[in-house]
Amino acid sequence: MHVLVIHGPNLNLIGEREPSIYGTQTLAEIDRSLRDLAAELGADLETAQYSGEGQIINALHAARSSADAIVLNPGAYAHYAHAIADAVAAIAVPVIEVHLSNIFAREPFRRTSVVAPVCRGTIVGFGADSYRLALRAAVNLASGRRP
Amino acid sequence: MHVLVIHGPNLNLIGEREPSIYGTQTLAEIDRSLRDLAAELGADLETAQYSGEGQIINALHAARSSADAIVLNPGAYAHYAHAIADAVAAIAVPVIEVHLSNIFAREPFRRTSVVAPVCRGTIVGFGADSYRLALRAAVNLASGRRP
Amino acid sequence: MHVLVIHGPNLNLIGEREPSIYGTQTLAEIDRSLRDLAAELGADLETAQYSGEGQIINALHAARSSADAIVLNPGAYAHYAHAIADAVAAIAVPVIEVHLSNIFAREPFRRTSVVAPVCRGTIVGFGADSYRLALRAAVNLASGRRP
Amino acid sequence: MHVLVIHGPNLNLIGEREPSIYGTQTLAEIDRSLRDLAAELGADLETAQYSGEGQIINALHAARSSADAIVLNPGAYAHYAHAIADAVAAIAVPVIEVHLSNIFAREPFRRTSVVAPVCRGTIVGFGADSYRLALRAAVNLASGRRP
Amino acid sequence: MHVLVIHGPNLNLIGEREPSIYGTQTLAEIDRSLRDLAAELGADLETAQYSGEGQIINALHAARSSADAIVLNPGAYAHYAHAIADAVAAIAVPVIEVHLSNIFAREPFRRTSVVAPVCRGTIVGFGADSYRLALRAAVNLASGRRP
Amino acid sequence: MHVLVIHGPNLNLIGEREPSIYGTQTLAEIDRSLRDLAAELGADLETAQYSGEGQIINALHAARSSADAIVLNPGAYAHYAHAIADAVAAIAVPVIEVHLSNIFAREPFRRTSVVAPVCRGTIVGFGADSYRLALRAAVNLASGRRP
Amino acid sequence: MHVLVIHGPNLNLIGEREPSIYGTQTLAEIDRSLRDLAAELGADLETAQYSGEGQIINALHAARSSADAIVLNPGAYAHYAHAIADAVAAIAVPVIEVHLSNIFAREPFRRTSVVAPVCRGTIVGFGADSYRLALRAAVNLASGRRP
Amino acid sequence: MHVLVIHGPNLNLIGEREPSIYGTQTLAEIDRSLRDLAAELGADLETAQYSGEGQIINALHAARSSADAIVLNPGAYAHYAHAIADAVAAIAVPVIEVHLSNIFAREPFRRTSVVAPVCRGTIVGFGADSYRLALRAAVNLASGRRP
Amino acid sequence: MHVLVIHGPNLNLIGEREPSIYGTQTLAEIDRSLRDLAAELGADLETAQYSGEGQIINALHAARSSADAIVLNPGAYAHYAHAIADAVAAIAVPVIEVHLSNIFAREPFRRTSVVAPVCRGTIVGFGADSYRLALRAAVNLASGRRP
Amino acid sequence: MHVLVIHGPNLNLIGEREPSIYGTQTLAEIDRSLRDLAAELGADLETAQYSGEGQIINALHAARSSADAIVLNPGAYAHYAHAIADAVAAIAVPVIEVHLSNIFAREPFRRTSVVAPVCRGTIVGFGADSYRLALRAAVNLASGRRP
Amino acid sequence: MHVLVIHGPNLNLIGEREPSIYGTQTLAEIDRSLRDLAAELGADLETAQYSGEGQIINALHAARSSADAIVLNPGAYAHYAHAIADAVAAIAVPVIEVHLSNIFAREPFRRTSVVAPVCRGTIVGFGADSYRLALRAAVNLASGRRP
Amino acid sequence: MHVLVIHGPNLNLIGEREPSIYGTQTLAEIDRSLRDLAAELGADLETAQYSGEGQIINALHAARSSADAIVLNPGAYAHYAHAIADAVAAIAVPVIEVHLSNIFAREPFRRTSVVAPVCRGTIVGFGADSYRLALRAAVNLASGRRP
Repeated sequence: MHVLVIHGPNLNLIGEREPSIYGTQTLAEIDRSLRDLAAELGADLETAQYSGEGQIINALHAARSSADAIVLNPGAYAHYAHAIADAVAAIAVPVIEVHLSNIFAREPFRRTSVVAPVCRGTIVGFGADSYRLALRAAVNLASGRRP
Repeated sequence: MHVLVIHGPNLNLIGEREPSIYGTQTLAEIDRSLRDLAAELGADLETAQYSGEGQIINALHAARSSADAIVLNPGAYAHYAHAIADAVAAIAVPVIEVHLSNIFAREPFRRTSVVAPVCRGTIVGFGADSYRLALRAAVNLASGRRP
Repeated sequence: MHVLVIHGPNLNLIGEREPSIYGTQTLAEIDRSLRDLAAELGADLETAQYSGEGQIINALHAARSSADAIVLNPGAYAHYAHAIADAVAAIAVPVIEVHLSNIFAREPFRRTSVVAPVCRGTIVGFGADSYRLALRAAVNLASGRRP
Repeated sequence: MHVLVIHGPNLNLIGEREPSIYGTQTLAEIDRSLRDLAAELGADLETAQYSGEGQIINALHAARSSADAIVLNPGAYAHYAHAIADAVAAIAVPVIEVHLSNIFAREPFRRTSVVAPVCRGTIVGFGADSYRLALRAAVNLASGRRP
Repeated sequence: MHVLVIHGPNLNLIGEREPSIYGTQTLAEIDRSLRDLAAELGADLETAQYSGEGQIINALHAARSSADAIVLNPGAYAHYAHAIADAVAAIAVPVIEVHLSNIFAREPFRRTSVVAPVCRGTIVGFGADSYRLALRAAVNLASGRRP
Repeated sequence: MHVLVIHGPNLNLIGEREPSIYGTQTLAEIDRSLRDLAAELGADLETAQYSGEGQIINALHAARSSADAIVLNPGAYAHYAHAIADAVAAIAVPVIEVHLSNIFAREPFRRTSVVAPVCRGTIVGFGADSYRLALRAAVNLASGRRP
Repeated sequence: MHVLVIHGPNLNLIGEREPSIYGTQTLAEIDRSLRDLAAELGADLETAQYSGEGQIINALHAARSSADAIVLNPGAYAHYAHAIADAVAAIAVPVIEVHLSNIFAREPFRRTSVVAPVCRGTIVGFGADSYRLALRAAVNLASGRRP
Repeated sequence: MHVLVIHGPNLNLIGEREPSIYGTQTLAEIDRSLRDLAAELGADLETAQYSGEGQIINALHAARSSADAIVLNPGAYAHYAHAIADAVAAIAVPVIEVHLSNIFAREPFRRTSVVAPVCRGTIVGFGADSYRLALRAAVNLASGRRP
Repeated sequence: MHVLVIHGPNLNLIGEREPSIYGTQTLAEIDRSLRDLAAELGADLETAQYSGEGQIINALHAARSSADAIVLNPGAYAHYAHAIADAVAAIAVPVIEVHLSNIFAREPFRRTSVVAPVCRGTIVGFGADSYRLALRAAVNLASGRRP
Repeated sequence: MHVLVIHGPNLNLIGEREPSIYGTQTLAEIDRSLRDLAAELGADLETAQYSGEGQIINALHAARSSADAIVLNPGAYAHYAHAIADAVAAIAVPVIEVHLSNIFAREPFRRTSVVAPVCRGTIVGFGADSYRLALRAAVNLASGRRP
Repeated sequence: MHVLVIHGPNLNLIGEREPSIYGTQTLAEIDRSLRDLAAELGADLETAQYSGEGQIINALHAARSSADAIVLNPGAYAHYAHAIADAVAAIAVPVIEVHLSNIFAREPFRRTSVVAPVCRGTIVGFGADSYRLALRAAVNLASGRRP
Repeated sequence: MHVLVIHGPNLNLIGEREPSIYGTQTLAEIDRSLRDLAAELGADLETAQYSGEGQIINALHAARSSADAIVLNPGAYAHYAHAIADAVAAIAVPVIEVHLSNIFAREPFRRTSVVAPVCRGTIVGFGADSYRLALRAAVNLASGRRP
């Protein structure tokens, strides 16, 4: 069982960037924590970070033959990048959307995710733990193991 | 550590009600599964279901001295019941919002939760497993145990 | 054949309340007129009035094993109480929405009923006769007798 | 007592047109059923079908000296033809609006009827029986006979 | 110099229709008063009333070789009939829009005229005198005579 | 002269709840201060707090034979509970709306009160003193004594 | 019979300002032409131009004892100056709104006049002749002389 | 194979009307060019032009037994005439919408076609060649011949 | 303790202007009643009325060294005059907004006050007594004396 | 004569992706069919597919010296990528927009193309044949050959 | 070369007013700094501050014969004072809009300047330096000297 | 002191592209003029142009250790690319937004910059001189030298 985690734009800066919103953990630390949890859940983990919308689309396409489930943090693309939503809809692999911060408690434009309707589920607001919960959900969707 | 799960209106009918949207598990089965997971996580679980907005407000108030974390499925109240949101904001206990279905993939009015901005986080779309993930998040918020 | 009539909030005051909008007949008089018509149509009639949204939800739930059709005047709840709409959608019994006044000729907020989309049909503007017409429609849906 | 039934655009095709939405009864069959009910209620029935907005306006004008009540299915004109609404408001004869389908459960543009505010009442969603209920309401408005 | 006056839908009923809004003068009386004023101003007057949008379009087209100026009361069509606006734009003859009532003081939908942007000018709110003022303006546009 | 004060949802928690917004006085302290002022003004005071919309509607109905004026803090219900507004409109007793905080300086949804249009007046932003001012206004409406 | 003409902001520059929109006649020339027409109609004419909203309000107030009718070109204030509209509503003298250009054919904000609903009528688009037509209408409102 | 081309309102004036938007070809010239192309494609062509919404509805209805495909230029009706859209939906014959000008580059109201959702496809912006492309598409839909 | 009362545009006409909305008391009578109450409360009262937005801004600026509290009835400026709101925000003296009529029960544009968010509180709907209540609140803000 | 066809994001998956919406033909098959038609029309064809917005912009820029016409399927970028629209506007080569599915019959966000206003024309809804029709239009724009 | 700087409402209070938003420099200090820069750039500087909309309009009019360029800080008038925008459009002298604070990062109403579209350019967010940059731009527009 | 200038999409074509909007200077010429000014101001200048949103994000990230201030012309990305705005917010280096044309005088979508709220300031409408002014502001933010 193979799970792909895609980190969208600006997530490479977390830990450094606006810590009151995004926490102090770096992306490397989050990835390490996820790899540990994946091992615990019997899954194989791959992570990647992209700034470009086209790159995320390509990664989603490529995963359709390699991944059993995908955890996607689209960052700000969540709010307007319909082409990413179309890529999610175009592949059969289940995709789970995550956000670190509670996007519903911030600026109005962040209250709508155009990617959410084509994902299986969405998890927001738990900081780095949003990813851990999503990984459990991903493993469940790919293997039936209860989260 | 005590966790309260509040099921909002119409959730008493799940399993029977529109199974293509809400799944075939009954509320009793979901509660049983949650109790098992709570035990596994070392938490004490209490569940309740209410149809009335005022009842949910009262339950949230009461929990401020008894619960360490709350999992709340506000059902359709999510989309307009600002008085419930005020109750969540009025208490110090962390509250996690869950929805069974992917509310972002349904009617437009379901795309906005007025409760979400005052919750710690929101988990939607994983059916009964939304509750399991939320329980893990709740235990984490109450005790620091990683979800 | 059993038909349930649910009167929503403030309908207990009609006859007394704003007679230029709602007419001079009291709720008791309307119920009596409906009972007579039900007898004529071979139906068994039950009526109830509730002020609380949760009470209406509970009454709709309870009726799913006792009633063959429901006539519902949601009063002002028609315009925002999505939880009542969910209760209507959650039960298999057909529900007919009625309003005494022509809600489309009043304040803008009254022009949209969030309950209407999940009802079988809607009848508005005929005063107490809205109920009589709805009762005929209810008997038709429950028994096939032409209205 | 004379009642006029006006069928708006595209109603000539029902029975043939989109039967999952509009049913399988033809307009001739509906008119026959209405004539029978009118006879039963002691009313004289006249029916007509028009595709043009101007024709409907003219028919409403003409009816002000010949009809005691009018049943009007404006079809799609309900949603934008303010000139028809003005014609309804311009005559003293009471007009009842009907729709076969539940217009509130369809596309957003169908949720608003610009004709409804100037009609006495509106009946939607009961298929051909919407007309029968409206005819009862019409006879009541014209003669005082309870519907 | 030839001036055409086009009365739109429901104007045939004025005098009889809602006199508190539209006054007590009949259309025949208005036309007579306009003919007198036209004679005084040295213009030749032609008047017509139509209920159908297509008829008004045809009348505008026909007038492009016969009229030097047009006074148009589009009635309720003013608020949505873009095809009439296109007809006004398609001809070189100047068109003046009139309304009897103050459309800006009535229902919200009446506050916007889709025809106004392609007319030379608009005169509203003076009852039958709106036409007289428009006739003066029309003669001015056609002949240069100060209104 | 009898004045009823109705405190809506979450007001039972003031003093404890978000003191930067709602102040540090408890509801019991506010009621005591109001009782003193009522005595000074020669009025008889009754206070109650409810979480449920239906309970507030029932209390308003009951007061129509017992109270000469009502002071109502609808809490968050102010912003969507049209059924409470209908209850205010349905009774002859004058109702005054109060809010502790300046609702116009907070989230956008708090800027509109659906209850305000049917109340005699509205007083917002003076903390617990909003109630004292409203009590003076209530006594004035009930007895003519200048506030 | 005394008629007051109020020219709003920027009208002092016409003739010089954007001639393709407002024409080449100066305000002095327009006033002269209006004085001639007033004499012809047996009216006494007074004209004034103001840049300030408060000045226009004061002029309207002052006119309530001196003028029999007012012609008001509010300029851009038409689109937002509700205080001027309140001044028009506060006085008994009839007010007629004029605009030189066809405001409905320009920027979206110019399509709504907040002053129009409280004026007797509105005349737009005829350049300086808008004033002449309005003067005729004013004389008619003040003296009954047909325009 | 029979193809019907319906030209909507104001298209009779093209060539003469606003040539910078609609080109200099007359409708007769366009029809001639289409007849030549139809012959080349082995199709039988019928063309008609109507100003009235009802006439277009009737023509669509009539074509359901005579035409294999329809090319429809609804003119300005595209933007509001839901009754025409209902007629397109009511018949089984495939309909292709065309517009001469690029309606997306003009006034905002022209950016939405209410007819487009029920047509097979839409072709806009190529002047008279929009029709030629649509005719190719029509022949393809009726006979399978690649366009 | 010095309290300044600023009356905005058109308030000089009350008593005479639309008495069904604004009552029959004149501004002089209101000022007299306020002076009496100020004396009773131990405050020094100054009142002024302005038609111009700039004048109100200047008065607010001037008061920052002379007044301890300000009662401001911005009249129609409440709904759009952001520059007055900025003046209120720019000074340290507490400002209380009042309106005579229930602005929430009138035209839609009156439902929003752009000044309210920067005032301490708002009192609307009590006629001239709105000022008396505001004066009590002002004295309370300036001196701590309970209202 | 050189024509460039640009396929936007996710089009590389057609044939495989959501065949009920996009058909079963692969992109390679579509390109082959287009090359055959180009040969028939005497044109030289170049095709490319890009996932990135920047890549499409670069391709459009590059084509300004190499292509005589461009066929562009912007995929979901059509609905928000103003930078692509600016690129189309920045080059002199005519661009034709195509979509496989009827975007007007799908989700609301797909009803607006921000690219359409700067293209010569738009063709939607004919599946792979949308491209063939666009190629004919492109050859016409580049060479004058009737489509 | 003569440059006029117009400071709008409330700018007289800067330095004292909300220093976290507007800085601690007084208007006199800003004017002094501008005069120094003007001297350096070879320009003649005149500055003025007004609270009234009419005063700003008059100052703009007067400057059309005396100034070669104008720097205008309309303050809050930027967001609604269309009459000021019309004054800017009515004169030939180039006008540059400045704001001290970043108006795009504040309340929603501040995000739109109705004055901006008729100015040559806009500079916001640099505190008192916004004026210095605008002065450089003004000198450039008036004399061609690169800023 | 190091200043980075980032030119967004389509700016590589200026001078060639739509010169009536963007002027006739090429990007190379603008960069040369900026380099000269930087030298004069004692700054070190680096410029780059990107078509891709991801590239701009990466460039902003990279600059956080190399640049003291950034001048950013986001081109059309200004109006929707929230991911670029997040990148600006994520770095500590001050960013200044520039636009060549007056974006407030063009299409409605250009009136809102989603990037502006997180920049220090915005300068629009001065053609290539927008950059020069921004460079002065950048040097000021980085070194305190008055602009």
